[in-house]
Amino acid sequence: MHTIKEFLLKPVFYDTWTNVEVKGWVASNRGNKKIRFLEINDGSTIKNLQVVFKGEEFDFELLDSLKPGSAIVISGTLNATPNAPQPIEMNATKLHSFRKSDDDYPIQNQEIKLETLREVPHFRHRTNILRAVMLIRSTLAQEIHKYFIYKNFYYMNSPIITSNDGEGAGETFIVSDKNTNDPFFGVGNKSTLGVTGQLHGESYANGFKNIYTFGPTFRAERSNTKRHLAEFWMIEPEMAFYDLFQTIELSQDLLKVVIRNTIAQHPFEFEYLDKISNSTLLNRLNLFLDSNLKIIDYKDALKELEKVKDTFEEKNIHFGLDLSSEHEKYLTDVLYKSPVVIINFPKSFKAFYMHQNDDGQTVAAFDLLVPGIGELIGGSQRETDYNKLVTRINELGINQEELQWYLDLRRFGHMQSSGFGIGFERLVMYATGIDNIRDVIPYPRTNGNIRM
Amino acid sequence: MHTIKEFLLKPVFYDTWTNVEVKGWVASNRGNKKIRFLEINDGSTIKNLQVVFKGEEFDFELLDSLKPGSAIVISGTLNATPNAPQPIEMNATKLHSFRKSDDDYPIQNQEIKLETLREVPHFRHRTNILRAVMLIRSTLAQEIHKYFIYKNFYYMNSPIITSNDGEGAGETFIVSDKNTNDPFFGVGNKSTLGVTGQLHGESYANGFKNIYTFGPTFRAERSNTKRHLAEFWMIEPEMAFYDLFQTIELSQDLLKVVIRNTIAQHPFEFEYLDKISNSTLLNRLNLFLDSNLKIIDYKDALKELEKVKDTFEEKNIHFGLDLSSEHEKYLTDVLYKSPVVIINFPKSFKAFYMHQNDDGQTVAAFDLLVPGIGELIGGSQRETDYNKLVTRINELGINQEELQWYLDLRRFGHMQSSGFGIGFERLVMYATGIDNIRDVIPYPRTNGNIRM
Repeated sequence: MHTIKEFLLKPVFYDTWTNVEVKGWVASNRGNKKIRFLEINDGSTIKNLQVVFKGEEFDFELLDSLKPGSAIVISGTLNATPNAPQPIEMNATKLHSFRKSDDDYPIQNQEIKLETLREVPHFRHRTNILRAVMLIRSTLAQEIHKYFIYKNFYYMNSPIITSNDGEGAGETFIVSDKNTNDPFFGVGNKSTLGVTGQLHGESYANGFKNIYTFGPTFRAERSNTKRHLAEFWMIEPEMAFYDLFQTIELSQDLLKVVIRNTIAQHPFEFEYLDKISNSTLLNRLNLFLDSNLKIIDYKDALKELEKVKDTFEEKNIHFGLDLSSEHEKYLTDVLYKSPVVIINFPKSFKAFYMHQNDDGQTVAAFDLLVPGIGELIGGSQRETDYNKLVTRINELGINQEELQWYLDLRRFGHMQSSGFGIGFERLVMYATGIDNIRDVIPYPRTNGNIRM
Repeated sequence: MHTIKEFLLKPVFYDTWTNVEVKGWVASNRGNKKIRFLEINDGSTIKNLQVVFKGEEFDFELLDSLKPGSAIVISGTLNATPNAPQPIEMNATKLHSFRKSDDDYPIQNQEIKLETLREVPHFRHRTNILRAVMLIRSTLAQEIHKYFIYKNFYYMNSPIITSNDGEGAGETFIVSDKNTNDPFFGVGNKSTLGVTGQLHGESYANGFKNIYTFGPTFRAERSNTKRHLAEFWMIEPEMAFYDLFQTIELSQDLLKVVIRNTIAQHPFEFEYLDKISNSTLLNRLNLFLDSNLKIIDYKDALKELEKVKDTFEEKNIHFGLDLSSEHEKYLTDVLYKSPVVIINFPKSFKAFYMHQNDDGQTVAAFDLLVPGIGELIGGSQRETDYNKLVTRINELGINQEELQWYLDLRRFGHMQSSGFGIGFERLVMYATGIDNIRDVIPYPRTNGNIRM
C-alpha cells in the first residue's frame, strides 16, 4: 500500500490514478453541504493529502461530523494539480469506513505549546512538530542499524539489569520484586539498571571484533535539566584493535552518513523544522556534513579558553578543569561554529577504563561536542594493561571483586580496543533543533514524572 | 577490511592475494620449530583461517607461546588450496603484533558443556557453538529491522520504566533509587519495568499507522524453566486498520523473510548447528519456509486433541482449557509437524484488550506455536469499543484510572488495530535448535542469577 508521502514526492509519475485507497486521520475539515475538503494524514509525513468530496453519493451531514482526529478509509482518484499549492489532490469516490473522534480531542490546535503537549504523550505525535521530530527519530535509529549492518558490526544486547554499575559514578536505579526478604537475583547480589552497556560490550568485541549496542540506559539523577532523562537510549560501538583516532573517524563517518540519509528521507519534515528554527537548522547540519571534524587537544583548548577567560563565569582556566557548558559553547558556537572533538583529557575526571597516556596525566579519551547541545558523543581507547587498571580501580576506591570479570578480559587476548557512546536523544535534538530532551522521546521519564 | 568469512566464501575470486592483513584470535596452534600452523578466528564466522609460518624471519619460540585466546595481527599471502579441506590458507609474511593469553584461558576445550559455559558469559562466545548462536542472534535482529524498514514501519521506543503493568497479569519488577522516603518518580506513582511495549505502541500506531518496538521486557517470575528469562527482548508490531488475518499474514511473512535471509548469511553456522541437531534443524526450518502456515480455530484444535486425549496428562479437553505444552506439542510436533496458528481463544484466559468476537465467548487472538518450543508469537486484534473495554477491565478487577489514557485512544479515531509480540530469544532458539534460553542471550538473567 502506498503512503501519502510517496504520492506527494512522486506526483510526476501520474496525471490521474484511479481506485487509490487511503487510510488515515482527519487533520482538518472544511466546506459546505455540496463540497467538502478533508485533509488526511496517514503518519508517513507531516504533509496532508487533500481529499475532495463532491456529488450526490455522499452524506454531507455525516462528512461534516468527521472532526479532526477521526479515522477514515477512502477510495478515490488521485489527480496532479500543478497549479495548486499542493502537487496532488484526491477526488473521493467512496467513503469505506470511519471512526469519529470525540469533541474534546486534545490536538484541535496545532499551535499548542510543547510544555502542554507533554501532558498528552499518547496524542502529541499527531501535531506537526512532534510528528516531524518522531519521524526523524525513527529514521535516525533505523539508519544507525543500517550503517552498522553495512559495516559488518555485530549487534550486541548488553544486559539491562546488572550487578555492575559500569562507570563507578552516577546514581543507579535499584531493581527488586515484591518479596523483600528473599531478593529475586539472590542474597548479596546487587541488581541495578545499567548506566552503560560498554563493559559487557567489550567482552563481545573480544571475539566478534566490531560490535555495537543500541538499547536503553538509566540514571537516577535528581536534576531537572533540558538535556537529561532518567531513561534514555544509547548506541555504544566497541572495536577491538582500534585506536583513539580510528574511533573518532568512525564516529564522524557514522554521524555524517546517518544524518545525511535521514535528511534525504524527510524533505517535508526538515523544511518545516528549518522554518521553525529561522532557517538555522539545515545550515548548521550542512556545515557539519561538508566540513572535516575539528580535533583539538584538551591542553590546546585550554589555551583558546584562556584568551577569552573574562567572558566566562569560571575564569580559572587550568589543567584539571572539567569544562563546563559555557566553555564548550564558546568552542562550538563561537570559535569553530561546528562540532568539535576534544581529546586527551586529564584522567582525574574520566572513567577508570580509559587508556593512560605516557604523560601520566591524561587519558586517550574524546568528547564530541556539538553547537547548542554540548556533549553528543564520549569515547576512549580502553586501557589494556591489567596492572594499570587494577591500580586505577584501587585509587578510585572501586570494588575490584565486582569488576574482576572485566579485568580478566585483559588476561586473554586483549590487544587494543576502543569505543564510544552516543546519547541517542541528544542526536535527535541535534538533528531536529529541538531544545528540550523531553520532546524527542515518546514517553519521557524524569525525576517526578512517569506519565503513563 | 575484509573478514575471514569473506575470504572463505569467495575463494574463487583469487589464486593468490598478497599483503592481506588479518586481525583475530588464535584458536589453535600446532607445528614445530621450523613450521607452525595457527588457526585464526576473527569473529566473522565459526570457521578459522589457517595461517602458516615458515622461514627464518619468524621467532618460533615466540610463535609457540601464542596459546589459544591470544590476539594477533598478521600480514601474509592468501592462497587458494583447492585440494585441501579448507579452500584457502595464508602464508604469513609478517607478525605485526600480538597479545598473549594467560594459561588459564577458560575456552581451551571446545567440548565444554553449555551449563559450564554459563559460568563464563564473558568468554563463552569464543566457542564454536556460542559463536554460531550469537552470530545468528545478531543477524536475526538486524534482519528484523531491515524487514520493517523495507515495509515503512515506524520504529517506536516504548518506555522501559512505566506506571502501567500492561497485561494486568504477571509479576513486575519495582524500580526505585536509594532515597526511600522520597520516591524518584513522585509520591503515589508506581514505577515498574515494562512487561510489554504494546499499550504505548498502540498510541503510536494511532498516528503513524504501522509501528514496531524492539526492546527489553521483564517478568519477575520465580520459575526456572528452559524457556523463561527475567529479562528478554521483544518485537511488538502494531498496525492501525489491520484485522486479525492481515496480522497473522504479516507475522508469517516476517518470520519467513527473516529466517530465510539469516540462513543465507550463515552457511557455516547453520551447517554446524544442523550437524549437532542430527540433521533435523535445516529440515525443520525449510519445511516451515516452504509451506503455508496452518491456521486452526481453537474449537477445532480441541476436536483434534479430543481424539488422542488418552495420551495426555490433562485428558479433560473442554472449551475454556488453556492448552498446556503437551497439547501444543501434539499439534506442532506430531499432528502437523510444522508451526501452527491457533485463533479465537476463550476470552477467560486472554488479556483485556483483545477484540471480543460476536459469540460473546471468544476473542480475536492468535498464538503461533512452533515445534520444540511452543509459543513463539502471540497477538490479537484489539478491542475498539470503549464501553466493552471498560466492562472487561472492571470484570477483571483492573484499575481503570491507571489505564484511562489507553482507553482514551478509543475515543479519538481508533478504527481497528492489531498487533503481536515475538519473544526474540524464542525466535533465536527456534532458528538455532538450542533448547535452553540461557544459551541464546549474552548475559541471561533468571531468578537467583545476575552474573556480571
